[in-house]
Amino acid sequence: MSKQQITLNCDMGESYGQWKMGCDEDVMPLIDMANIACGFHASDPKTMAETVQLAVQHNIKIGAHPSYPDMVGFGRRSLAMQADELTYSVIYQVGALKALCESFNTELCYIKPHGALYNDMLQDHQIFEAVVDAVSCFNVPLMMLAVSNTQPFLDIADRYEVPLLFEAFADRAYLSDGSLAPRNQIGAVLQDSESVINQVKQLTQFGKIRTLDGDTLTLEADTICVHGDNPHAVEILTQLNHALGLER
Amino acid sequence: MSKQQITLNCDMGESYGQWKMGCDEDVMPLIDMANIACGFHASDPKTMAETVQLAVQHNIKIGAHPSYPDMVGFGRRSLAMQADELTYSVIYQVGALKALCESFNTELCYIKPHGALYNDMLQDHQIFEAVVDAVSCFNVPLMMLAVSNTQPFLDIADRYEVPLLFEAFADRAYLSDGSLAPRNQIGAVLQDSESVINQVKQLTQFGKIRTLDGDTLTLEADTICVHGDNPHAVEILTQLNHALGLER
Amino acid sequence: MSKQQITLNCDMGESYGQWKMGCDEDVMPLIDMANIACGFHASDPKTMAETVQLAVQHNIKIGAHPSYPDMVGFGRRSLAMQADELTYSVIYQVGALKALCESFNTELCYIKPHGALYNDMLQDHQIFEAVVDAVSCFNVPLMMLAVSNTQPFLDIADRYEVPLLFEAFADRAYLSDGSLAPRNQIGAVLQDSESVINQVKQLTQFGKIRTLDGDTLTLEADTICVHGDNPHAVEILTQLNHALGLER
Amino acid sequence: MSKQQITLNCDMGESYGQWKMGCDEDVMPLIDMANIACGFHASDPKTMAETVQLAVQHNIKIGAHPSYPDMVGFGRRSLAMQADELTYSVIYQVGALKALCESFNTELCYIKPHGALYNDMLQDHQIFEAVVDAVSCFNVPLMMLAVSNTQPFLDIADRYEVPLLFEAFADRAYLSDGSLAPRNQIGAVLQDSESVINQVKQLTQFGKIRTLDGDTLTLEADTICVHGDNPHAVEILTQLNHALGLER
Repeated sequence: MSKQQITLNCDMGESYGQWKMGCDEDVMPLIDMANIACGFHASDPKTMAETVQLAVQHNIKIGAHPSYPDMVGFGRRSLAMQADELTYSVIYQVGALKALCESFNTELCYIKPHGALYNDMLQDHQIFEAVVDAVSCFNVPLMMLAVSNTQPFLDIADRYEVPLLFEAFADRAYLSDGSLAPRNQIGAVLQDSESVINQVKQLTQFGKIRTLDGDTLTLEADTICVHGDNPHAVEILTQLNHALGLER
Repeated sequence: MSKQQITLNCDMGESYGQWKMGCDEDVMPLIDMANIACGFHASDPKTMAETVQLAVQHNIKIGAHPSYPDMVGFGRRSLAMQADELTYSVIYQVGALKALCESFNTELCYIKPHGALYNDMLQDHQIFEAVVDAVSCFNVPLMMLAVSNTQPFLDIADRYEVPLLFEAFADRAYLSDGSLAPRNQIGAVLQDSESVINQVKQLTQFGKIRTLDGDTLTLEADTICVHGDNPHAVEILTQLNHALGLER
Repeated sequence: MSKQQITLNCDMGESYGQWKMGCDEDVMPLIDMANIACGFHASDPKTMAETVQLAVQHNIKIGAHPSYPDMVGFGRRSLAMQADELTYSVIYQVGALKALCESFNTELCYIKPHGALYNDMLQDHQIFEAVVDAVSCFNVPLMMLAVSNTQPFLDIADRYEVPLLFEAFADRAYLSDGSLAPRNQIGAVLQDSESVINQVKQLTQFGKIRTLDGDTLTLEADTICVHGDNPHAVEILTQLNHALGLER
Repeated sequence: MSKQQITLNCDMGESYGQWKMGCDEDVMPLIDMANIACGFHASDPKTMAETVQLAVQHNIKIGAHPSYPDMVGFGRRSLAMQADELTYSVIYQVGALKALCESFNTELCYIKPHGALYNDMLQDHQIFEAVVDAVSCFNVPLMMLAVSNTQPFLDIADRYEVPLLFEAFADRAYLSDGSLAPRNQIGAVLQDSESVINQVKQLTQFGKIRTLDGDTLTLEADTICVHGDNPHAVEILTQLNHALGLER
């Protein structure tokens, strides 16, 4: 990933009705790609529209961020859906966002599943295929975790002619097997900007990441996922942009 | 409306999860246009997909049937939404159905609001404009009731370059002012196939309708709305198709 | 179980808004205990009230039938809830039904979880304990499957001073380990009244059940679960009542 | 209202899943009565339980705060429900909260409708009666706005033997007819602590309120509604408690 190719993606539009979440207006200018919630784990039609509009103002690429249907659980709880239910559910959500994009004269650029669905599709090839099947309707790439062995995922995606985008995390610690350290483990989330900047520099310059247990991991990432859901994160993001020499 | 122009439209895809409603498989072959629920008053992604598939099998035109968000009330209760909320809500629903249409290689042909939203937009020009605004994103016509004075509606729709399709009802009695007789009024719903066939023939041959109180109404309708949510309706529909000489 | 102790329980009140499910009015006179849905997998406040009223008219005991929150999946899909979320969710649902019971001057008599929650609590003691914790607030028994080894369940329930009611199924085939044959297995559901009557007689007279693979199972059941969600079931129920000499 | 009778009530428990709203932990020690949302416009079973627990810790009286079913609209949009639907819906919500109260060994003390339902019941006696009908199941008072002419409300409530509690607002400006100034009118919400304290002192000492247009209104209030949904409000509340000499 050369400097001009480094892109930062971030979950956006996760408010719901009167409930506000995140600092979208502060974060949007600091990223390249906005993963916008589609109304199944967060957001509602008006929030989606306003988030699309904000992305357009800052010339940010828009991705759909579909989820299991679970508002109260914020899409973080696995739900045992049938494969076809899941495929149609993803098409529904992405189609809704795509139409809102088009109403603001912009386009949908990629799809990145959220929360438990994101995790489950990495563990279960049937779930992955159900998602890929949905993505294939939109002629855009599917964004997923940059895992050590991407081949099984590429095999499935190729059958549906779906390109894959691999992302690494700026502020999450990794384990030796390439998975993210669970959030309840100490050190799982990098708290200071120095650690975040180091991890991203390692990733973007050398394709390496230092794991929580001291190993070195080789990861090829197309984009870096950052979090922007607290004021502290905005500060880290600002410094990260500066450190990477990203001009906006 | 010459014989070859007579089209029958019908609300379809109003099941929800395990709950079945309507006789979609029997009705679909007997109509021209299927108004498919979009998940806000009825239906769910899988039901929508299966209904689209059924329409494709029978070569039926698909319209979106968006609603106020109200599953338990089946979209029949007015909800005091802001205009922009309503516009984005309609775009969301229609976009979701459109994507499912495209996943079955078919297209969305028109939009017809459901229930309380359908009635409210006829009474309140702000609501009508909020709907028209949403429809203008999809380059398809908006279907609405064939009222006596269409000019105010045409004026608004013209500003958004949205064509209007006017529908009359096969099995609902009319009042002298061109409105439908309320369902709780005796005779509001035509029960036998003879009455239904007579009303449709009057409409399609002479553009006239006999009101409940004995007047004669002039109505220009582009399409006829039929109901298919009970076995009796399927029988009436079959006879209506035969009486009109519609070949399918 | 002597003849006068034989009780039949049945899931009731599973309609939702405009969607009807089951034949509650025909079934209610043929059972002893009505498991009433609480609005999380089926039903709504009005449907619940009308079902309570129907039970009161026929002098039927009312039980709460809480579920995972999943209308579109009818509570049949496992959802990875935290234990405390689950406990509070069950209290919420049961409390809602209890208040509706009291508004009709009747009382709540027991609690029987629905669908995936029913199955999951039999497999996972943490889930079972979360449910028992909720039930302990209501001073009523918890109804569960009559399994071969009830001791682990009794141990947990005793700590919360919750009595257990064990039920066997009239029309479901069993496997040798005491579990129900999965619905997708041939013969999993007994279709004719003769088989159903035989199974219930074996159960109530000898505490035995013939499994799908020819074994004989010993089961102590306090109550028999019947299904009433189709006209055929109503006929079977009528014959079962007659065969058991149950006077109503 | 003598000093020892002055009570402050406040809407609480309006978070939803991952979305936080309000400063419940800071506000709870500063009030007497907590109006707890019941899961139809805000809150969920776990949030309700935690709010009940917080109220118990501070020895605060708990009231139910039921609403139209409308999470995304936060219960602020009128919904055209039938009277019986509304009654059962309120019983459902209040019953759910009551059971959670009992699970923490405390009791439900009163019921105060939320948002659009609160406003609608003041305008429409049928809606008011539907609410009163529900409240009558719980043997607790109904809290409503202290209006100029309470007689019509007392007449209905008396028929159901439901006591009424009248509240006045600490931080909302009034119009001459005794109604609250609409939020979009300038000066509708009192912003500084001095104005709030003055209004409450006038109310509690003289039963008078100065309207936005300079009139003086006579109001008999049993309790004062305060808002606590921002840090500034916490400060005003602290000063108000001090000014009123309320010891906690």
